Amino acid sequence: AAPAPTSLVLAEKGNYRHFMQKEIYEQPEVVGHTLSGYLDPVAGEVRPREGIDFSAASRLLIVGCGTASYAGQIAEYWFEALAGLPVEVDIASEFRYRKPAFMPNDVALFISQSGETADTLEAMRMCKAAGLTTIVLVNSPLSTMAREADIVAPTMAGPEIGVASTKAFTCQLGSLAALAVLAGVQRGRIDAAEQASHVTRLMGIPGLMAQALRIEDQINHLAGELAQASIVLYLGRNEFFPMAMEGALKLKEISYIHAEGYAAGELKHGPIALIEDDVAVIVIAPYDELFTKTRSSIQEVRARGARVIAITDDLGAAALDGEASAIITLPRAEGLAAPLVAAVAVQLLAYYVAVHKGTDVDQPRNLAKSVTVE
Amino acid sequence: AAPAPTSLVLAEKGNYRHFMQKEIYEQPEVVGHTLSGYLDPVAGEVRPREGIDFSAASRLLIVGCGTASYAGQIAEYWFEALAGLPVEVDIASEFRYRKPAFMPNDVALFISQSGETADTLEAMRMCKAAGLTTIVLVNSPLSTMAREADIVAPTMAGPEIGVASTKAFTCQLGSLAALAVLAGVQRGRIDAAEQASHVTRLMGIPGLMAQALRIEDQINHLAGELAQASIVLYLGRNEFFPMAMEGALKLKEISYIHAEGYAAGELKHGPIALIEDDVAVIVIAPYDELFTKTRSSIQEVRARGARVIAITDDLGAAALDGEASAIITLPRAEGLAAPLVAAVAVQLLAYYVAVHKGTDVDQPRNLAKSVTVE
Repeated sequence: AAPAPTSLVLAEKGNYRHFMQKEIYEQPEVVGHTLSGYLDPVAGEVRPREGIDFSAASRLLIVGCGTASYAGQIAEYWFEALAGLPVEVDIASEFRYRKPAFMPNDVALFISQSGETADTLEAMRMCKAAGLTTIVLVNSPLSTMAREADIVAPTMAGPEIGVASTKAFTCQLGSLAALAVLAGVQRGRIDAAEQASHVTRLMGIPGLMAQALRIEDQINHLAGELAQASIVLYLGRNEFFPMAMEGALKLKEISYIHAEGYAAGELKHGPIALIEDDVAVIVIAPYDELFTKTRSSIQEVRARGARVIAITDDLGAAALDGEASAIITLPRAEGLAAPLVAAVAVQLLAYYVAVHKGTDVDQPRNLAKSVTVE
Repeated sequence: AAPAPTSLVLAEKGNYRHFMQKEIYEQPEVVGHTLSGYLDPVAGEVRPREGIDFSAASRLLIVGCGTASYAGQIAEYWFEALAGLPVEVDIASEFRYRKPAFMPNDVALFISQSGETADTLEAMRMCKAAGLTTIVLVNSPLSTMAREADIVAPTMAGPEIGVASTKAFTCQLGSLAALAVLAGVQRGRIDAAEQASHVTRLMGIPGLMAQALRIEDQINHLAGELAQASIVLYLGRNEFFPMAMEGALKLKEISYIHAEGYAAGELKHGPIALIEDDVAVIVIAPYDELFTKTRSSIQEVRARGARVIAITDDLGAAALDGEASAIITLPRAEGLAAPLVAAVAVQLLAYYVAVHKGTDVDQPRNLAKSVTVE
C-alpha cells in the first residue's frame, strides 16, 4: 500500500509523538474493550465461547512468534495453575519443523496480531491436518488465520501501526486470562465464587493500566541513563520471566540495545558472569510470593556492581529501599492483572530509551510489522 | 573440601592449559564410555533399563538448570520425533514455583551433573510427592538426587573441574539420545532395523567428535577476532536452537561476552534490529533438511553488515561459499549424532575466545561449579 500522506498520519497520531506512544496510551481502553467481549461482569462469569471446551482437553498447545509467543508463555502459567491443564508453548518456526508429538485431545491455540504470520499460519494448518481443534487469537477478524481456524478468539486492539507490538500484546493477555479462567471453570477447578473474584480482578485491569501510565515522567527520566547501556539483562520469575523476555525484545526492536530476558533463578547458572561495574539489570519484582527470591537476585547483581532498575509496586519499593539504583513503582496488582500492569512499564521504558537514542520508533530498522514470509 | 595442592592440579591437567580444554578433549572417550552403558552394539539395540518404561507414559517432563536444561531442550526434539512422546522442558527454578499441571502417567526426568543442584533437587521431590516416576540423569552416582530418585540414568563423564560444563553436557546428550531411541522402541515407533541404524550412528559419535577436535587451530585463529565483539547473536534451528543457547551460555560464562541464542526463524521478529556493521553472528547450519532456511538467515544478517561465523560441514561449507565471513567445517554427522559434534565447535569457540581475552577459564568470575543454594 502507498504510504499515507504525512498530514493524515500526523492527524491520526493526535497529540502523540509516535504511534507507539499513542498505542501504549490506548491500552486501558482497548484491553477493556477486549475483556468486555469475554466477561459478563454482572453475572461474575466468563462468557462461554461457542466451540471452546477445555473440559476434555489433554493439553493446550500454544504457538506464536516474537511477542505473541511471550503472551503464550505467560498464559502457560495461568492455564496450568488455574485449570490444571498442561500447556506446551512453541515458537512457530520451530514447531513447524520439529515433528511435534500430539495427543488425541490436544487443543491448539495460535496467536498472531495480523492473523497472517507465515510460520504461525503454517503451524495452524499442520495442527488442523492432524485433526486438532484450532483456536486463533487474532486482532484481524478478516485475516487468513481467522478464516481457516475452527474457532476465532478476537482481540479488540484496533489497528496497530507501530512495528513493536504493545496494545495487541496486552489485549492478547487479556483474552488469554479470560480463557484460562474459563478453562478452570470448565475443568471444575474454579467455583462460582472464585470465578466472580477473577472476573472482578480482570475488570479492574483497565483502571490499573491507566494508573500505571502515570509513571511516564519517571521513566522518561530513567531512560536517559539507560540509553547509554550497551547490554541489559532483564530478569523476572513466574509470569514475569516471559514478561522480561518481552521487555528485552522491545529494547532490541526499537532501542537497538542488546537486552536479554532471563529467569531470575537462572542467574547463577551463567549470566551472572556478565555482571561488572555499571552493567544495567532490569528486574521485574512485584511484591508477591516470590518477591524475596527475586530480591536476592537484585542483591547478587548489585553486590557485583550492576546498576539495577526494579519494576515493582509500593510494597516492593518500600522493601527494596536503597537496594536498587532506581525503582519504578506501579500500582499494586494481584493475580491475572499483574502482568498486564507490568507490561506498561516495560513498554514505556523501551519507548523512552528509543526516544532518547533518536531511533525511528515506529519503523525500526530491518523490521516489518507482519512477517508474512518465512 | 580443601583445594588440591598446585602441583597435583597441574599434574591432573596433563599437557592441557586448562581443565576445560582437557575436558573438551576427553569427550570422545567419556561419551563413548557413557554410550556403552546404554547400547548393545552387537545386538544393535539400546539396553533396556530397569524401571524405565516409556510405553504408557503420557508425557516426559524434563527439568534442569543452565546447560542441563539445554540438553533437555535438545532431547525434546528427539523424544517427540522418534517416540511420539510429548515432552515438556522446564527450568527448575520456574517449574518449582509455577504450579505445573501433571497427567497421571507423566514420567519426570531431572538432569544435573552434580546431582545436588538445589532447584532441580526440589523439583524432583515435588514430582515424587505428586506420584510421578522420577528418573535422574546425573554424573555423580552418590549424589542426593541419585539416592532419592526412583531410577538413575548415569553419565560417565568423570570428574568435571571446569566450571563451564562441557563433557558432562555431551554425556547427557549421549544418554538422552539412547533413551529417546529406547522410548521409540518401547512405543512401537522404531522397528529392529531402525533401532540398529540408530545404534550404529550413536556408536559413531566418539569418532566424529575426535575428528571435530581437529578444528582447534582454525577456531583459535577465529577467536582472536571474536574476542573483540561486545555482543554476539547465536542462531540455529531444530536441535541447533538450544545448541545455540548453549553456545551463547558458554560465551557468557567464560568469555564475558553478551551472547544470546535465538531460533533462527525468530530473527525477523525482533533481533534483526540489532544487526549493524560488524555485529558478530554465529550460525549453526549443518547441511540438513533445514539448511536452506538457516542459510537465508545468514544472507539476511550479512546483507545488513553482520560478520557471520557459520558452523557447518563440508557440504554446507561448499554451499555457503563466500556467504559467511568465516566457516568452521565439522565432519558430517547425521541425526542424533549431529548436536554432539556441533557441541565441540561451540565449546572450542568459547574456550579460545576466553583464552584470547585472558579470563580465568576454569574459575570464571561470579560462578560456582554446582549451584547448591537457590
